[in-house]
Amino acid sequence: MDRLNWNTKALNRADRLARARHALGTRLDGKLVATDAVVPLLESTLEAGDRVCLEGNNQKQADFLARSLRAVDPQQVHDLHMVQSVLALPEHLDLFESGVARRLDFSFSGPQGARLANLVSARRIEIGAIHTYLELFARYFVDLTPKVALVAAHAADAQGNLYTGPNTEDTPAIVEATAFSGGIVIAQVNELVDGATTKLPRVDIPADWVDFVVKAPRPNFIEPLFTRDPAQISEIQVLMAMMAIKGIYAEYGVQRLNHGIGFDTAAIELLLPTYAESLGLKGKICRHWALNPHPALIPAIEAGWVESIHSFGSELGMEEYIRARGDVFFTGADGSLRSNRAFCQAAGHYACDLFIGSTLQIDLDGNSSTATLGRITGFGGAPNMGADARGRRHASPAWLKAGREARAGRTGAAGTPRGQKLVVQMVETFREHMQPAFVERLDAWTLQEQAGMELPPIMIYGDDVTHILTEEGIANLLLVRNDEEREQAIRGVAGYTPVGLARDRRMVENLRDRGVIRRPEDLGIDPRMATRNLLAARSMRDLSDASGGLYRPPARFRNW
Amino acid sequence: MDRLNWNTKALNRADRLARARHALGTRLDGKLVATDAVVPLLESTLEAGDRVCLEGNNQKQADFLARSLRAVDPQQVHDLHMVQSVLALPEHLDLFESGVARRLDFSFSGPQGARLANLVSARRIEIGAIHTYLELFARYFVDLTPKVALVAAHAADAQGNLYTGPNTEDTPAIVEATAFSGGIVIAQVNELVDGATTKLPRVDIPADWVDFVVKAPRPNFIEPLFTRDPAQISEIQVLMAMMAIKGIYAEYGVQRLNHGIGFDTAAIELLLPTYAESLGLKGKICRHWALNPHPALIPAIEAGWVESIHSFGSELGMEEYIRARGDVFFTGADGSLRSNRAFCQAAGHYACDLFIGSTLQIDLDGNSSTATLGRITGFGGAPNMGADARGRRHASPAWLKAGREARAGRTGAAGTPRGQKLVVQMVETFREHMQPAFVERLDAWTLQEQAGMELPPIMIYGDDVTHILTEEGIANLLLVRNDEEREQAIRGVAGYTPVGLARDRRMVENLRDRGVIRRPEDLGIDPRMATRNLLAARSMRDLSDASGGLYRPPARFRNW
Repeated sequence: MDRLNWNTKALNRADRLARARHALGTRLDGKLVATDAVVPLLESTLEAGDRVCLEGNNQKQADFLARSLRAVDPQQVHDLHMVQSVLALPEHLDLFESGVARRLDFSFSGPQGARLANLVSARRIEIGAIHTYLELFARYFVDLTPKVALVAAHAADAQGNLYTGPNTEDTPAIVEATAFSGGIVIAQVNELVDGATTKLPRVDIPADWVDFVVKAPRPNFIEPLFTRDPAQISEIQVLMAMMAIKGIYAEYGVQRLNHGIGFDTAAIELLLPTYAESLGLKGKICRHWALNPHPALIPAIEAGWVESIHSFGSELGMEEYIRARGDVFFTGADGSLRSNRAFCQAAGHYACDLFIGSTLQIDLDGNSSTATLGRITGFGGAPNMGADARGRRHASPAWLKAGREARAGRTGAAGTPRGQKLVVQMVETFREHMQPAFVERLDAWTLQEQAGMELPPIMIYGDDVTHILTEEGIANLLLVRNDEEREQAIRGVAGYTPVGLARDRRMVENLRDRGVIRRPEDLGIDPRMATRNLLAARSMRDLSDASGGLYRPPARFRNW
Repeated sequence: MDRLNWNTKALNRADRLARARHALGTRLDGKLVATDAVVPLLESTLEAGDRVCLEGNNQKQADFLARSLRAVDPQQVHDLHMVQSVLALPEHLDLFESGVARRLDFSFSGPQGARLANLVSARRIEIGAIHTYLELFARYFVDLTPKVALVAAHAADAQGNLYTGPNTEDTPAIVEATAFSGGIVIAQVNELVDGATTKLPRVDIPADWVDFVVKAPRPNFIEPLFTRDPAQISEIQVLMAMMAIKGIYAEYGVQRLNHGIGFDTAAIELLLPTYAESLGLKGKICRHWALNPHPALIPAIEAGWVESIHSFGSELGMEEYIRARGDVFFTGADGSLRSNRAFCQAAGHYACDLFIGSTLQIDLDGNSSTATLGRITGFGGAPNMGADARGRRHASPAWLKAGREARAGRTGAAGTPRGQKLVVQMVETFREHMQPAFVERLDAWTLQEQAGMELPPIMIYGDDVTHILTEEGIANLLLVRNDEEREQAIRGVAGYTPVGLARDRRMVENLRDRGVIRRPEDLGIDPRMATRNLLAARSMRDLSDASGGLYRPPARFRNW
């Protein structure tokens, strides 16, 4: 092929920059764009059909740029292909209603899930695929590279250096992919400093990678997603947390781990300095974490349990506590957190021995999903954390023991010695409104048909889950050897749900004799001991007190 | 626990910086260290037992810092714990002989493998673990965080901003983990610019993350690892490449992929604009790559086959070609490559449908390894690329088809629909010196015993490999249903090796009838057509010519 020009991306980039300079005139000063000039900036730099990353993270939102993008003229800017982690704001979907955007590749939609499903069935949105976070970032460097990135930072200096503050999150991955492929990076910031008399507290993204900076009229929105009020933890959750600690963490010697979001895992965090301490486990489990700065971890940190925490994002109210606990968190020279979702997801995948999280439904094969009918939500990072990292080659006692259990007695390729990640699903047998967590058939199958997906939206596959933990006991699926054993192991911890009631009692007892199923009493746990008194903090006030007043929960969590 | 201070890392960092200022006096100007003051810099900033990353990449080496570290006083600096990707230089091992270092966590040792094995058996080196690259980076953020990072860049400005040039490689991952955990970052550079009258071509690492910069007396060493002279490609390799293209790439419609290093895969690259073009496959396969800038890919790029390439590192001599092909490569505003091993490994893991590479030995379970007796080498990135990414949730036709083949007729968890990555091992049945590539027992098992490893050093597990390709045919292991079928499928392509000769002929013919084994003639490939004439370049000169003279191979490859 004779191709005349192989630097069309660079030429196109220069065109866009020239158009922006022309459109903005004096409203552009170096890289600094006047706040009221953002819509013309977007209209001059965007082209129809562009692939655009509008930074929507799990927490931090480029909300001003989202509103501004909604305001562009759809005659001029249309059919954008949005490639962003999270659809969190109504504006993210408004873009599709107005025709500004058409195609979508994403990871998680949370509260927008129902509206997203409606727009998909009305054919206003064409979904490329639903990814896990790290998987989407990976595609930014392969076939979903953004042409324009619209990101959020806390502050910028006159040169365009960005300071993200604790919620660095996805920004480095997005900006790197865009800046090094002839794309354009536009950042909204809460504050501007001149860089000469006032300097940024630190640099998170170098100016060299940023084309335009605009001060937003309001600070960017950040959602406190990881705050769980200990007052809402039930005694059943305390019991399950005791089983997790004694039956899994201690059993395997889990030193490096990730916790999902929720009250179940918050209960584990709050039992470390009390129950786990009484078992003599300090220093033996839970030393290194890939985890957001969960407030529920404060008592364990204060009690000296935690050596390090690397974070995907941050958590509102934890700023001063993190600053005062620099030995534990990854912070910059300014003392504030440097989170990084890409590296933390890699850490969760490759450097952790255990992931534990909750789900809404589990079927008889052990497949689990939070997908529910009429909503398209995605799973964020869970499938990455909740999968065996088969490229892992470094050993740890926990990983080796799990691998031995999975492979004992097997032959051929399946019997070749190898470690395995512990992947635990922790659920009460009935969730709210008495919906059973155990089902014959996941809603995911119906959703697949409804939404025309290639595969059912399964969060964690039965092939990958190693333990299911309910108030009735722990099913260790590493030890099952065929479909029937797996089914009965699951039924055997499914309590009074229809799935649980339909168990083969004799087979379940046999599995219990083999240690495949373990009840609280098999673990030496007396359910009467499972009271809220075991929690190292029983209220938000307790958490704040445990932090010496350094943790300052957002107003809506301040109930004292 | 009552802990008096939770910012000991920051205090310790301040101590080290103060010691360095004191030790260097006028030989320190801002962040700039006089070349002859590096040994005192290291002696003042390092403490016994420190975890240290001495940047040893697959290609770029912080060689001046390595030599300087070898020169420190072992009375003062000793028992370091080295955490680095690659042990490439003799100096890397000298550190252990002199007692400066004691413990080692790494990914690949290449030419130092034999000496490493000797030092381990002499108990001079304590190996923590051997990792894949991304796995080691992940641990930098969990339990192997460097206290001091000694890195290499092409240039720095007076503020300490770093320009890496095309070999960015591991630097961003190393520096981020160190700089945001109270560590110290020291960079050797080839050039210094003042940042005022002369600016860096671009910024790869912001000054904010760098503590000290020193100009090395010589430019850092970079190894051209990915150059393969087309003159050395055999007709058997041409035949195997034809089978890969027609029997795997076309069959699955592989659009996004990674190639291992070697002549086998170079042959595939050189057949795209000729053989694959004749099959009408242009635009249907091989559009997006996670790959270093392989010179052998030049003819395919020139023929318009390649839309994008994201790279782990770079390749010497490709600088001007990359600059002139900015639409294809990830480059900065300066036109030179921005490689990034962490993101490219993530891309290979999560965004590619196929990995194809070579090995030295394959056993009857399909386990393969390049480990050989008396050497401890590691596998670099291969286990990460050559493993199914079980956290992946986005679909592609190639991935869905592989998943369907693997799961057809299975029940339970193993039958739940799911995609699968294509992992191909491409080997001639006999390697050099007539050593059979197919063996009853991998040397890895003996090496495990010799070196006291927890597990045998298997590069790619039989559980993960999907196809084995030899000059005799392709064994599609996705279609086997038990150990015996797997064994016979492997024997059936193992040619005249003892393993191949011991095949059950009737069973192999049966597997061929089922399409588990496919011979060249089953694929409509006439081996007589497999001549070197099919190669789009047959010499280094041809490659250079194909690039319009832009590719300038290193002297040792210039044979015209």
